[in-house]
Amino acid sequence: MPDEKVSPAATKITAQEARPERPLRIALFGFGTVGSSVAKILVESKPDGLELAHIFNRDVARKRVDWVPASVNWTEDADAVLASDADVVVELAGGLDPAGDWVRRALEAGKSVVTANKKLIAYHGVELERLAAAQGGHLKYGAAVAGGIPVIPGLEQGLAGDRILRMEGILNGTCNFILSRMEEGAEYAAVLATAQAKGYAEADPTEDVGGFDARAKLAILMRLAMRVVVDPEEIVPKPITAVAAVDFSYARDLGCTIRQVARAEETGGVVAATVGPMLVDLRSPLAWSRGTENMVILTGHYGGDVVFSGHGAGGHPTAVAVVSDLLALAHGSRRVAIPSVPARVGAEFEVPHYIRFLVADRPGIVAEITGALARERINIRAIVQKPGYPASALPFVVTVEPCKSSALKRALASIGKMDCLLEQPLDLQMLE
Amino acid sequence: MPDEKVSPAATKITAQEARPERPLRIALFGFGTVGSSVAKILVESKPDGLELAHIFNRDVARKRVDWVPASVNWTEDADAVLASDADVVVELAGGLDPAGDWVRRALEAGKSVVTANKKLIAYHGVELERLAAAQGGHLKYGAAVAGGIPVIPGLEQGLAGDRILRMEGILNGTCNFILSRMEEGAEYAAVLATAQAKGYAEADPTEDVGGFDARAKLAILMRLAMRVVVDPEEIVPKPITAVAAVDFSYARDLGCTIRQVARAEETGGVVAATVGPMLVDLRSPLAWSRGTENMVILTGHYGGDVVFSGHGAGGHPTAVAVVSDLLALAHGSRRVAIPSVPARVGAEFEVPHYIRFLVADRPGIVAEITGALARERINIRAIVQKPGYPASALPFVVTVEPCKSSALKRALASIGKMDCLLEQPLDLQMLE
Repeated sequence: MPDEKVSPAATKITAQEARPERPLRIALFGFGTVGSSVAKILVESKPDGLELAHIFNRDVARKRVDWVPASVNWTEDADAVLASDADVVVELAGGLDPAGDWVRRALEAGKSVVTANKKLIAYHGVELERLAAAQGGHLKYGAAVAGGIPVIPGLEQGLAGDRILRMEGILNGTCNFILSRMEEGAEYAAVLATAQAKGYAEADPTEDVGGFDARAKLAILMRLAMRVVVDPEEIVPKPITAVAAVDFSYARDLGCTIRQVARAEETGGVVAATVGPMLVDLRSPLAWSRGTENMVILTGHYGGDVVFSGHGAGGHPTAVAVVSDLLALAHGSRRVAIPSVPARVGAEFEVPHYIRFLVADRPGIVAEITGALARERINIRAIVQKPGYPASALPFVVTVEPCKSSALKRALASIGKMDCLLEQPLDLQMLE
Repeated sequence: MPDEKVSPAATKITAQEARPERPLRIALFGFGTVGSSVAKILVESKPDGLELAHIFNRDVARKRVDWVPASVNWTEDADAVLASDADVVVELAGGLDPAGDWVRRALEAGKSVVTANKKLIAYHGVELERLAAAQGGHLKYGAAVAGGIPVIPGLEQGLAGDRILRMEGILNGTCNFILSRMEEGAEYAAVLATAQAKGYAEADPTEDVGGFDARAKLAILMRLAMRVVVDPEEIVPKPITAVAAVDFSYARDLGCTIRQVARAEETGGVVAATVGPMLVDLRSPLAWSRGTENMVILTGHYGGDVVFSGHGAGGHPTAVAVVSDLLALAHGSRRVAIPSVPARVGAEFEVPHYIRFLVADRPGIVAEITGALARERINIRAIVQKPGYPASALPFVVTVEPCKSSALKRALASIGKMDCLLEQPLDLQMLE
């Protein structure tokens, strides 16, 4: 769009008020998948008010592409870019270090920062926001959670007037890819290999399958949605690696499937949060998410449930979130600063559970297990044993009515000592 | 709010700028369901920086409630409120008149306006935004489409960096309530009566069931998503009243259900939009929406599909959107002004269709119908005739492969002249 003054006769709408006198000069830190997608959108769409000025990357020569305007400064010198006239640093290197150092120095220099770095924001977001405010810059991180899905802008701009009481999210595309393929019958190791080949999973998948990635994102959402600042380390994740094919089979019989869910809720001022594989009802939106899709369900005190879903990762969707944050900066859109208070994270939920045992069969097992549950006053909903498994390694499932996590933990600790158990019971929350 | 020219240097804001020195003084125009919910949230949640100052309503005495602070001025005098020191007028009266007059006068006085008025924004949004910009105020209307679901903030803030090519929305809760109940076997007249009793439908339901409400909302979304200013009157709606129980029965056989869908797409610079009952695949998110739920699916050039769903209407969800807009104003968050250009609306889609005929049976009907379709080079996908209907009033269905809307219209005009037809064929787009 050409620059144009607003007049009643004008047919084009221009945003004169919001138009910067010169474009925001952007320095990209990191030219991997997301970085090159951001550059691509800036070059192709030429959004008003944004100018790509610097691209910083280690060993930058191998990164050079010919579709970036010649005016762009390709460099390996972070210090020089941080000392330059760039207005905004777009940090896409990820991890706490050295990304955190670059972000701090950019903010200290009065620049604004746009980042997709969930770990940095989960661990140091509050401190960095304070630094930005003190130095007159802005920190935006719409791409840090659920990439292309505007959950963070939705929370900051559209739901700020509500009080979010509960949230459930599918926040890790790798786990969702693996579990939705396992639902269709694939084996964990084979799907992981496919995910690695497609670039969905790292060589060491621990960060994803262990739940560490999702808990960082959950901590960020908890601050914006439930207005509590939590230490991500206090959210205890359960890895999806404990889930076996037999669990999908039992889950189906229960009208459910299995997804990695990050959930948090506030009850009477107490905050509980956890991440792990959970049984989700086949009629729940969470069950509809397939492949690398992300989904977030927020339950507001006033507004009820709101569901967001879409492509949570990948270069282009994440880059859309980054460019949207840049446009918001260029247009003078300020973050709605949502007040938050520090809180400790508990893990006490009161929900139904699925517990799968693997035993060497002998008489009396069910009596011992149900006895241990009864001692904690936990009501059994169903005991399911599918035919076709050997007595020497027999999987069977007990589902229980909503009970406190702590009570179930005590019962399982006692059950865990039984000599017939071939492995520790797998206990999964059931979402209703 | 003071007018503010934004320059890169001015993108730095201080804590003082982000927080007004005194709270924004709010004047509510309209104290119905949404208005009283807005007041409730303001009184209960006491959001930072917002002060309820005036409540204007006709015959205000009967509206008075005891939970509103005594400092609030209840009044029937719109002129006095518009001349007062209120910073923001929240317009919840709806309709073009006199709401439009109040909004214009508030903006002319340099006040900001927050409104849930889809009709006013669909027909006069561009003019009112210009007025706001010229006078130094702001116009926000996050509640105008899909109430409690942050689609508008999502588009303005989180997806501004993408180019939306296509959208499909369930934008009218009344129609969704009626059609999702009909899917379960209820009759139109009975469900409409229930909807009216529950307050979901007006005594005269034309605005909803005729598609006029949804097309106004579609026009608003088209501007933000596809960046075209369209005349809502150019979007031709098809009423849901044409859909009968037999259509749900046939739809189910085709793996589909029926929803009122508002859709728009841009292909090669040409914009097409329509609203009406459509066949949606049972595996599509659109089929999952039940009751008064709203849903919007946006397909971006870069980011792919993003789905939003939740409670689109009702006092509390809509009020959340209004209060969130107020908070954004209080925090100095500016709208990301999305540039747009005027465009004519076409109705030329190239999609498969479901066509249901009601005939007095005689030999040769299928030959004549298929002949008329063949003359327009329209390929038949399936001809379905369920047993159990009388030959004197026989419903049967033809589905066709994707074809141009104009070609099908010509074929149906020719078929429409057949003497055996008891009513004009019902033709519904099928979403894939």
